[in-house]
Amino acid sequence: MILARVVGTVVSSQKAQKIEGIRFLLLEKINPVTMEGKGDFVVSMDSVGAGVGEIVFYVSGSSARYTDVTEGKPSDSAVIAIVDFIEKDGKYTYEKNR
Amino acid sequence: MILARVVGTVVSSQKAQKIEGIRFLLLEKINPVTMEGKGDFVVSMDSVGAGVGEIVFYVSGSSARYTDVTEGKPSDSAVIAIVDFIEKDGKYTYEKNR
Amino acid sequence: MILARVVGTVVSSQKAQKIEGIRFLLLEKINPVTMEGKGDFVVSMDSVGAGVGEIVFYVSGSSARYTDVTEGKPSDSAVIAIVDFIEKDGKYTYEKNR
Amino acid sequence: MILARVVGTVVSSQKAQKIEGIRFLLLEKINPVTMEGKGDFVVSMDSVGAGVGEIVFYVSGSSARYTDVTEGKPSDSAVIAIVDFIEKDGKYTYEKNR
Amino acid sequence: MILARVVGTVVSSQKAQKIEGIRFLLLEKINPVTMEGKGDFVVSMDSVGAGVGEIVFYVSGSSARYTDVTEGKPSDSAVIAIVDFIEKDGKYTYEKNR
Repeated sequence: MILARVVGTVVSSQKAQKIEGIRFLLLEKINPVTMEGKGDFVVSMDSVGAGVGEIVFYVSGSSARYTDVTEGKPSDSAVIAIVDFIEKDGKYTYEKNR
Repeated sequence: MILARVVGTVVSSQKAQKIEGIRFLLLEKINPVTMEGKGDFVVSMDSVGAGVGEIVFYVSGSSARYTDVTEGKPSDSAVIAIVDFIEKDGKYTYEKNR
Repeated sequence: MILARVVGTVVSSQKAQKIEGIRFLLLEKINPVTMEGKGDFVVSMDSVGAGVGEIVFYVSGSSARYTDVTEGKPSDSAVIAIVDFIEKDGKYTYEKNR
Repeated sequence: MILARVVGTVVSSQKAQKIEGIRFLLLEKINPVTMEGKGDFVVSMDSVGAGVGEIVFYVSGSSARYTDVTEGKPSDSAVIAIVDFIEKDGKYTYEKNR
Repeated sequence: MILARVVGTVVSSQKAQKIEGIRFLLLEKINPVTMEGKGDFVVSMDSVGAGVGEIVFYVSGSSARYTDVTEGKPSDSAVIAIVDFIEKDGKYTYEKNR
């Protein structure tokens, strides 16, 4: 899974029928040490109610169809966790509520 | 899913039988903040009637077989949505009808 | 799918039994605007009778097993189309018989 | 599979139900010759009891669901081995207990 | 499939039960024109008895589970062929027994 920040949303009215009703999040991949954005973006289907600004990780590939929201759907990216904290070498690089 | 602009089409008369009748779109990946093309191209099977110039997102990998058009076919990329707008940090970086 | 030029072949006598009798093409990925090679190569299983010099596109991942030639075989890349022409922004960047 | 060093952990309380109880390791990919980190990180599900500082390799894609811990779950990365040593061209580049 | 040189082995005593008894090869990807290593490494499961120094190609993703050795196992890379020769534009860039 890859760590990213939710930076926005993508809206489409003309789309494959199977993905109607799903929320498409715009994610920017981050460096989990500096927490800076990498300028690399992906559209991901939300399965956990993530909001703009939150740090999440998403799953790619066929496993993106293994959430309650995306089962059987044409998805290659799904947000599966909102991150509370990231610990690296004994130090927090990120804590959600600080 | 990855955001891209439809920039053209690819035509083939000698191809795997299973993919006959499918429209092959030439997509250029974009930076969804600047909306500029990245010079990185992919051939994607159309499942939504997308046209040249439109901003779309496509699904990769096995999930590219999960559309009505591509089911059971050798596809690793399918356009599944035409984008109406992209919102980043509260501002639109793209609106279709402007 | 990714556009590439067939630049050669790879021959192996000691290989997994399931892939005996398959032709292994050496492909060089191309920029479909300039038609120049990228110096990035992949070995792909031929399902359409492609020859050296031709422009093709190939399918990656599990979908590379969805051709008549590669079904049930350990393949992650299969050539599924020989390209006749590529059109970008209303102009041909490639025509096979010119 | 890709070689990496376990550098930390990622904690999430709001996540897909299926992945509750799984330990999320923060991995940094390494160059297995110099053993230096590449500054490239991935979140991986632990299936072998790996600890911070250990060299491991992880499996990506659908095969990340083929461990006892991750079966049927939305996982695209699972640690499947703690490395004892790496031998390159007849020399050890890494030995765990030295 | 990707061309690579077998440069070593990786040994692990603490690993997922399903992958016991499998040989883990350290591969370095090569440029098949210059035959030089790219400094990019992958751990691959051997299905053909490949030895250090040999040029091989390996299969990635779910298809890495489609060999006799790796069936049903958490593998995303399997060596499926030892290369005899590579021909590019009518010339050999590699011949095994020269």
